[in-house]
Amino acid sequence: MSDQIYQIFEQQQKERGVDVEEVKLRIKQLNIETPSWGYGDSGTRFKVFQQEGVPRDPFEKIEDAAQVHKYTGNSPGVAIHIPWDKVDNYEELKQHAKEHEVHLGAVNPNLFQHDDYKFGSVTNADPAIRRKATEHLLECVDIARTVESKNLSLWFADGTNYPGQGDLRKRKHWMEECLREMYLAMDEDMRMLIEYKFFEPAFYHTELADWGMAYNMAQKLGPKAEVLVDTGHHPQGTNIEHIVAYLLDEQRLGGFHFNSRKYADDDLIAAAHNPYELFLIFYQIVQAQKDRSHGIRNNAENIAYMLDQCHNLEPKIPAMIRSITNVQTLYAKALLINLEEVNEAQEKNDILCAEHAVRKAFEFDVTPLLRVMREESGLPVDPMQAYLNSGYGEKILSRGKGGASW
Amino acid sequence: MSDQIYQIFEQQQKERGVDVEEVKLRIKQLNIETPSWGYGDSGTRFKVFQQEGVPRDPFEKIEDAAQVHKYTGNSPGVAIHIPWDKVDNYEELKQHAKEHEVHLGAVNPNLFQHDDYKFGSVTNADPAIRRKATEHLLECVDIARTVESKNLSLWFADGTNYPGQGDLRKRKHWMEECLREMYLAMDEDMRMLIEYKFFEPAFYHTELADWGMAYNMAQKLGPKAEVLVDTGHHPQGTNIEHIVAYLLDEQRLGGFHFNSRKYADDDLIAAAHNPYELFLIFYQIVQAQKDRSHGIRNNAENIAYMLDQCHNLEPKIPAMIRSITNVQTLYAKALLINLEEVNEAQEKNDILCAEHAVRKAFEFDVTPLLRVMREESGLPVDPMQAYLNSGYGEKILSRGKGGASW
Amino acid sequence: MSDQIYQIFEQQQKERGVDVEEVKLRIKQLNIETPSWGYGDSGTRFKVFQQEGVPRDPFEKIEDAAQVHKYTGNSPGVAIHIPWDKVDNYEELKQHAKEHEVHLGAVNPNLFQHDDYKFGSVTNADPAIRRKATEHLLECVDIARTVESKNLSLWFADGTNYPGQGDLRKRKHWMEECLREMYLAMDEDMRMLIEYKFFEPAFYHTELADWGMAYNMAQKLGPKAEVLVDTGHHPQGTNIEHIVAYLLDEQRLGGFHFNSRKYADDDLIAAAHNPYELFLIFYQIVQAQKDRSHGIRNNAENIAYMLDQCHNLEPKIPAMIRSITNVQTLYAKALLINLEEVNEAQEKNDILCAEHAVRKAFEFDVTPLLRVMREESGLPVDPMQAYLNSGYGEKILSRGKGGASW
Amino acid sequence: MSDQIYQIFEQQQKERGVDVEEVKLRIKQLNIETPSWGYGDSGTRFKVFQQEGVPRDPFEKIEDAAQVHKYTGNSPGVAIHIPWDKVDNYEELKQHAKEHEVHLGAVNPNLFQHDDYKFGSVTNADPAIRRKATEHLLECVDIARTVESKNLSLWFADGTNYPGQGDLRKRKHWMEECLREMYLAMDEDMRMLIEYKFFEPAFYHTELADWGMAYNMAQKLGPKAEVLVDTGHHPQGTNIEHIVAYLLDEQRLGGFHFNSRKYADDDLIAAAHNPYELFLIFYQIVQAQKDRSHGIRNNAENIAYMLDQCHNLEPKIPAMIRSITNVQTLYAKALLINLEEVNEAQEKNDILCAEHAVRKAFEFDVTPLLRVMREESGLPVDPMQAYLNSGYGEKILSRGKGGASW
Repeated sequence: MSDQIYQIFEQQQKERGVDVEEVKLRIKQLNIETPSWGYGDSGTRFKVFQQEGVPRDPFEKIEDAAQVHKYTGNSPGVAIHIPWDKVDNYEELKQHAKEHEVHLGAVNPNLFQHDDYKFGSVTNADPAIRRKATEHLLECVDIARTVESKNLSLWFADGTNYPGQGDLRKRKHWMEECLREMYLAMDEDMRMLIEYKFFEPAFYHTELADWGMAYNMAQKLGPKAEVLVDTGHHPQGTNIEHIVAYLLDEQRLGGFHFNSRKYADDDLIAAAHNPYELFLIFYQIVQAQKDRSHGIRNNAENIAYMLDQCHNLEPKIPAMIRSITNVQTLYAKALLINLEEVNEAQEKNDILCAEHAVRKAFEFDVTPLLRVMREESGLPVDPMQAYLNSGYGEKILSRGKGGASW
Repeated sequence: MSDQIYQIFEQQQKERGVDVEEVKLRIKQLNIETPSWGYGDSGTRFKVFQQEGVPRDPFEKIEDAAQVHKYTGNSPGVAIHIPWDKVDNYEELKQHAKEHEVHLGAVNPNLFQHDDYKFGSVTNADPAIRRKATEHLLECVDIARTVESKNLSLWFADGTNYPGQGDLRKRKHWMEECLREMYLAMDEDMRMLIEYKFFEPAFYHTELADWGMAYNMAQKLGPKAEVLVDTGHHPQGTNIEHIVAYLLDEQRLGGFHFNSRKYADDDLIAAAHNPYELFLIFYQIVQAQKDRSHGIRNNAENIAYMLDQCHNLEPKIPAMIRSITNVQTLYAKALLINLEEVNEAQEKNDILCAEHAVRKAFEFDVTPLLRVMREESGLPVDPMQAYLNSGYGEKILSRGKGGASW
Repeated sequence: MSDQIYQIFEQQQKERGVDVEEVKLRIKQLNIETPSWGYGDSGTRFKVFQQEGVPRDPFEKIEDAAQVHKYTGNSPGVAIHIPWDKVDNYEELKQHAKEHEVHLGAVNPNLFQHDDYKFGSVTNADPAIRRKATEHLLECVDIARTVESKNLSLWFADGTNYPGQGDLRKRKHWMEECLREMYLAMDEDMRMLIEYKFFEPAFYHTELADWGMAYNMAQKLGPKAEVLVDTGHHPQGTNIEHIVAYLLDEQRLGGFHFNSRKYADDDLIAAAHNPYELFLIFYQIVQAQKDRSHGIRNNAENIAYMLDQCHNLEPKIPAMIRSITNVQTLYAKALLINLEEVNEAQEKNDILCAEHAVRKAFEFDVTPLLRVMREESGLPVDPMQAYLNSGYGEKILSRGKGGASW
Repeated sequence: MSDQIYQIFEQQQKERGVDVEEVKLRIKQLNIETPSWGYGDSGTRFKVFQQEGVPRDPFEKIEDAAQVHKYTGNSPGVAIHIPWDKVDNYEELKQHAKEHEVHLGAVNPNLFQHDDYKFGSVTNADPAIRRKATEHLLECVDIARTVESKNLSLWFADGTNYPGQGDLRKRKHWMEECLREMYLAMDEDMRMLIEYKFFEPAFYHTELADWGMAYNMAQKLGPKAEVLVDTGHHPQGTNIEHIVAYLLDEQRLGGFHFNSRKYADDDLIAAAHNPYELFLIFYQIVQAQKDRSHGIRNNAENIAYMLDQCHNLEPKIPAMIRSITNVQTLYAKALLINLEEVNEAQEKNDILCAEHAVRKAFEFDVTPLLRVMREESGLPVDPMQAYLNSGYGEKILSRGKGGASW
């Protein structure tokens, strides 16, 4: 029956003017890095529930990440976090990844877990600590060079908890100073992805609190600096896809940290909550990609997609697989939007028709499409089931409890 | 007793190293425009309750605004809204203001009440409507020139209610195009104040949704364009004083629309809700002003303060007086912060001491200070009571109901 | 091809253990009232854009509502608002509805548009105004009796804008007193549906601010009083389906006002934003309905579904049709959840499996199901297109502009 | 000068009709428990920064808490958390407290840190785990009996992260079942204080998500069960004082966890953010206390005040002292409200006057009042400075790092 279902799907799309071959090709090209830290134990401030089988070192994290790519086909990169993934020999780590048919992705400096950073890292009032933080940033540039990663992904916990605690304008300048030094150390083909966050762990002011602050920093630094959008880092109600469209137009959309949330930075499985939001984000990207082919400038073809999630309760590898397949699903749906139809309705201010032209793509069941795409790529048609059947989950239980964690 | 109270206050501040004469001087120099439309009837979408005595035309609005200045001494300017305040002869309106010892302030174009703007003004898909909107902007530049106002205050209702309704990137470009034309028509000493708003009346995307979008627009246009911060236009929890400090540092803080809110853009009496927030905003401004005297660049000396409120239930003139005295109170408190003390604690990362150095200024009762400041300025010591005793409120009842409204 | 698609759909569901005949039956039985006021002009506080063809009186509103039912088959009831729908002869209005194959639904008193209610209706400090408000409530009971409606749907704008404005506990008692009088006047088979709202038009405190206040009032009054959930009346992030499940369990879920929102009470087309939320609400209802058949008490079979929307920009009748079909779609999807599968996963604490068991029902394209359901019911397979083709929209243009509005 | 300042203050208040002696008496009677866990290390999910000198066991926690009471005079009780404060001999702990001139306060069960509670405690699908949780609740009743504490303070982390993860109605019943068993085990003079929370650590649904769910539970259990309001546990914008007034009126306000926040449950120093909110909460309480003397029923005289804070960055004991003095300050201000004046303005619907009658009490500087109150009580006039001068902070440094933590 499944062949028949796909044929019907294909036929339906053809009639709508959608080229299914092109859609499949685009999904195959999707590349979503998974975060090494997402395979370790995580939790809330109240409790980290340790899971059995959690990787004990960066090498095992890569092995787990390789499983996700093996079954989904869309996650060949593994983002690393320094010093969580610090090793003596990065060459070896790189090789290890290669052997497992993945590669090392974005390098993430960590400037929030050393005691020195209690009152800030690149914004600390103490120049010695700012120096230390800058050195770590420079170290990460070196690591990136070694592991042949082109992306440096920067998230800063810097901020304050109380009015008066810090001098907001001085801190702003200190951060710029440190980042400029890092920027100058970067190779020409490297990218600095600057992340912003509404709050947490800082509860009064966060240094880079919104896209505007990250964007302005990127502009000051130069063309190698771009903005990283984490889907969980906004105030409630924020229209994220608007920010995405805005940054695309300004050619400063560097990448994404996908995850979902209902409240704050909940870091749940991508698209588990309000899946329509991720669809609408992809709608902006897909439209911008098409506009490029008509000569409109934007940077929709060079976006670094990454997951950034905490699987506090659910098993890590399956949760990553679910996240990847969710992203595939919503990207596929966005690719089914007939953009001409939307555009025509927009020009007539026919709201109901324009909205419907977008929405109906969301309503399609893309399961048959993804199934065929996977078959064509030599992948299991049901990645989750294939992983569960593989015995890998049972095998790693021998690692026991107490693996890597934040 | 009141003399004695003031002497004690003065003595207390002296011991803290605060120069009370300087504080009084600064408060005297405070200049907060009131909005002509704030004297007319307003309401919610559910009901506009008409008040008796509401002004029937721009001339009467100015007379009412003059009352606020007469009793508070800090509101010599009256912002106008076109076409709500459209008159045949702006020279006459200007003279009328002068006769009432006030002047016309910021000119506010209105691009949201004509039927043509149903689907957008400067972002409308129809070039004829964008043209019309641009012409209105240019008309407002002319009016500003005529009435010798230097500030053009721009708020756009433009946005969409549904995904797909509009092309987000196209609309962005259209807006920039229109504003550039306006910008080029402005005199060298004019300022364009670009306001942003989280939502309402648009419920999906708002063209200028946050400070970042307004700031980026200002940057593209040039040095005469700056950002206007309306204190009610942010997502819940937003650290507004952080944005203020940021814009000061970037020299793009153009001005404020003061009002207070608990939920959305409630447009209530300034500082009626969470008064500490306005104090913290002034703390950033006062600190930046001081830094300027030490050679640090920012634009803290050139901020256009305005009220923008809707007195749906309470009488308009007294509500404006209350708003002005609330702003005076919180500005006065911010001026009592010993910035050296804050700075010293910050350098030692002594959070409790730094926070307290800010907070204790808030705890002072500045009533005696404001009383003496008023006496020195020849103003009534209790502006509200003086107005209520004046008989003006009774006199205008003869205007009846059904005056100006949105 | 469409027959084939449906056969495949039916086969797929059969294999999952879902009885498609039962699903269709349940959708056919769905009954969603549309609000008479949703056919009139509405807007924001900034502007009401008048539409051509808007009904000029309650009779025309019913005619428009009848169109929605004619094409969707699921909206036979029309909720009325008094005095907006005040007529001399309600018997005549009832007959008019009958002739148009609909009936009058919930009766909604209006206690927020008369000048007397400026400072509150049933919570006004003035006993004469509370009396007036109570009389209006009693009048509505009479009207409900006359038009044979069993539901009285109560929304109160009562609240305050400033701390101190009202005595919160006194107002609470006054409201209870008025509602008790109304409750006692109601027939045994009538229901009082008590709505709550987070804010607007009150901006400090709203008398019935959340479900807990509405629920407690219902409990105090007695079994004929229940809670009405408007999907746009909650703080951001609120888990509405949790409240729904809670009220079902307490047997106090009276009904819904469906609409969607991104920010506040935006009153947009149902399920246009975050459609997954409405699906999850129906999941709770469907599960509760099933539990009833196993003897678990809840009131899932007696829910009054209503739309409550403002089509500020889009044409009214098509927007209602879209809302109804959106609700049908999400209800249909919820009916596809295999509840046994969910339950089994829950018992094993298999989060990923439980979540997926719910989510995969959402992913199905129910278009073929709805098509067949419509065919079986003698309805057009595409209600929107059928309406647009009918010429009704053009016909009513002769009504001109300036029809009914808030 | 300070005597003179106080005399002036006293005179001012006398003229306003406020009895300063009564106010001082009320402040002296204020009793705010501090939480034993607030003296230990805490942090965010990103990092716990360990502080030197943090207590290593429950006995040292009590010693630290005793310091806070010694200098403030208002915190004789110390809330304990089981098993964090588990000791072999509770009699000994009680004696230890007595020797340090404090007593053990509310007993807080902990049902969120054992691995068994990963998927819930009293709502776990596994009856054995629910049994275990219930036994812990019963154990806490015993401990309360032993330490002669009358308050059992219950906070549940129970909830889910994903739709479908749990059966919402079953979990509701399981919780009720467990709490009923605990309730029945409680002595007649014990109180169960039921806390609610909007979210965290659960990110989809939280079992007791709002005051309504806690209140309904309390009602079902009986008169010994009441609601605990944590000021950080609400959605943004929530009018907490309204909930407080509501619960007072229903005689179910059990107590408070004071802390402040800007974003989520930030657990910062009480009243450090938006101090006006705590003032407005006390306004409701003070008004209710007065109404009781006029025969109006409410439970304003029997409220358990507690702090519940995490001092992640600042030193613990000083932060507690600051919190207590902040609460004293805002309570003192609320006691200065002339309630007759408010009431008269309310009856005339004079919004500006009513609001001002409340607000002006907030504007008074109560420092002189608190100073005299402290002198009369034999307390240091500046509790913070007295503590800092005492040398206690230096003495405990010998405890080193690595003391108690969550």
